[in-house]
Amino acid sequence: MELQKELIEKILSGDKRAVSRAITLIENNTPAKPVLLKLLYAHTGKAYRIGITGPPGAGKSTLTDCLIKHLNTAGYKTGVIAVDPTSPFTGGALLGDRVRMSESGLLKDVFIRSMATRGSLGGLSKNVIDACNVLDAAGKDFILIETVGVGQSELDIAQTADTTVVVLVPEAGDSIQAMKAGLMEIADVFALNKSDRAGADEIASGIRNMLHLKKAAEHHRNIDVIKTIASRDTGVKELFAEILGHKSHLEKTGMFDRKRKEHLMREITETVNGNLQKNFWDDVKIQLLNNSIESIYAKTTDPYTFAEELVKSISSKIN
Amino acid sequence: MELQKELIEKILSGDKRAVSRAITLIENNTPAKPVLLKLLYAHTGKAYRIGITGPPGAGKSTLTDCLIKHLNTAGYKTGVIAVDPTSPFTGGALLGDRVRMSESGLLKDVFIRSMATRGSLGGLSKNVIDACNVLDAAGKDFILIETVGVGQSELDIAQTADTTVVVLVPEAGDSIQAMKAGLMEIADVFALNKSDRAGADEIASGIRNMLHLKKAAEHHRNIDVIKTIASRDTGVKELFAEILGHKSHLEKTGMFDRKRKEHLMREITETVNGNLQKNFWDDVKIQLLNNSIESIYAKTTDPYTFAEELVKSISSKIN
Repeated sequence: MELQKELIEKILSGDKRAVSRAITLIENNTPAKPVLLKLLYAHTGKAYRIGITGPPGAGKSTLTDCLIKHLNTAGYKTGVIAVDPTSPFTGGALLGDRVRMSESGLLKDVFIRSMATRGSLGGLSKNVIDACNVLDAAGKDFILIETVGVGQSELDIAQTADTTVVVLVPEAGDSIQAMKAGLMEIADVFALNKSDRAGADEIASGIRNMLHLKKAAEHHRNIDVIKTIASRDTGVKELFAEILGHKSHLEKTGMFDRKRKEHLMREITETVNGNLQKNFWDDVKIQLLNNSIESIYAKTTDPYTFAEELVKSISSKIN
Repeated sequence: MELQKELIEKILSGDKRAVSRAITLIENNTPAKPVLLKLLYAHTGKAYRIGITGPPGAGKSTLTDCLIKHLNTAGYKTGVIAVDPTSPFTGGALLGDRVRMSESGLLKDVFIRSMATRGSLGGLSKNVIDACNVLDAAGKDFILIETVGVGQSELDIAQTADTTVVVLVPEAGDSIQAMKAGLMEIADVFALNKSDRAGADEIASGIRNMLHLKKAAEHHRNIDVIKTIASRDTGVKELFAEILGHKSHLEKTGMFDRKRKEHLMREITETVNGNLQKNFWDDVKIQLLNNSIESIYAKTTDPYTFAEELVKSISSKIN
């Protein structure tokens, strides 16, 4: 507990190593984790959370790197969580766990951390949120969360970030596929990266038209498409201005608090569900499942009835 | 209940419309769902499940289409579940829910169904497994499950399928990214699609070398890299032969039953966890959360303590 108090103090002072240690405690699900999160919670809420998502190859991490440098130059303290398995920040886990760290990570007041997307079934987004809370308590002004936008992860990011930036590239196929995947619906800000490529203007106005339809349907603010060339650091200032535009829109309309409360609701629900499972699966029940698997596999009973009865054996004690 | 009996009989006879209706009941989480799944379970276990995954743009759905036709010509009954948001089977959900159906879907004894990847937080894989069980009970010999291999979904597919086929394309960047994402570790069979492109042979032998390392480390069977050109229906016969090779390897080594029991364990665990949540979140508790959100947001209390106490109010009644 004394140790914890020291760790908390160091985190609150913005100490990089303490922050790193805290995120490791979170990832490893140590008993210290809930204690830590409880004590840090009162110090959270000040950092603005920006989600950056898009299909693989859109240049999300190069753009993230540009944003980090831009924010750093502007004097902001920045934290980055990379959850994209194709990101160079994350590096991937093939033949070892080598993490290629961007040079931005060496900047003062910049903290970059990659988090695994594998082996933590269902637990990913919650760990990411917990890590963001640590960065928030550590005094970061902005937190960037980079994730690949295919399938489920883009939904998770939209339910965590204050502003969600969708990064696309000017290839008709890619863009259309990305939109199919639902990226369109979650975008607060659009970056058309690699916009020096042929056809960029056509794609940009195509997206603008669709966004116009979306705006009309949902009474949203006017979403612009920001053309960027991350590899040449072009358009990053404009992109950040657009993010700040969305931020002030949220604040002016009262949507900021509403959105954060919704995210908090989801966070609590996930914590409760996690606790329910942790409490339920004690040794007795794990043993019971192990002992029953042969007869279920042999179809003596079915898995749904077995599951119901296992849960009922608890519920009956309550009612 | 009378209606259910009729539906079951029709499913068991392989009736396409009954199968389709059953999967809709599953997707909509109707009260009929558990009843249906319980009654069908005794009739499952015969279909062989093939997962097909890979990065977007690898040509997974064209290859899936080739496999469907190949299996159909060979006289096998085939079911297909497409969970890939970038797949033309799935079509995507932008501005409506238009599903583009491949002509293969019109073939006798072929059933193709796309399932949403969004809006069903955490419930995706379970619904897909349930749908596979319906197809299994309906007498399908093979079930193909197509999903995009980025992030979490490739892990889910490997924990559902008997054989997991990873589809790559001969672009160094892509392949390396795909491997990073963990595709390497879950592959039972490798298809190098679009293998008429430059550099295909180098990439193929590169993958073979890495697979050799994997084999040595994990005492696996020798995994070959099958070169395919799905758009010209080339290599599909060889790919299917390799899948059957993996199937007989599983059967000979006793790994088949072991793998299926592991999948069943996971399925039961997920069903239990789902039931726990469903039982827990009654109106009283939802109301309690709604009433507390303001004070948690205002930091009067923290979300972790709140979650613990909410769960404890139940547990205390048990112990």
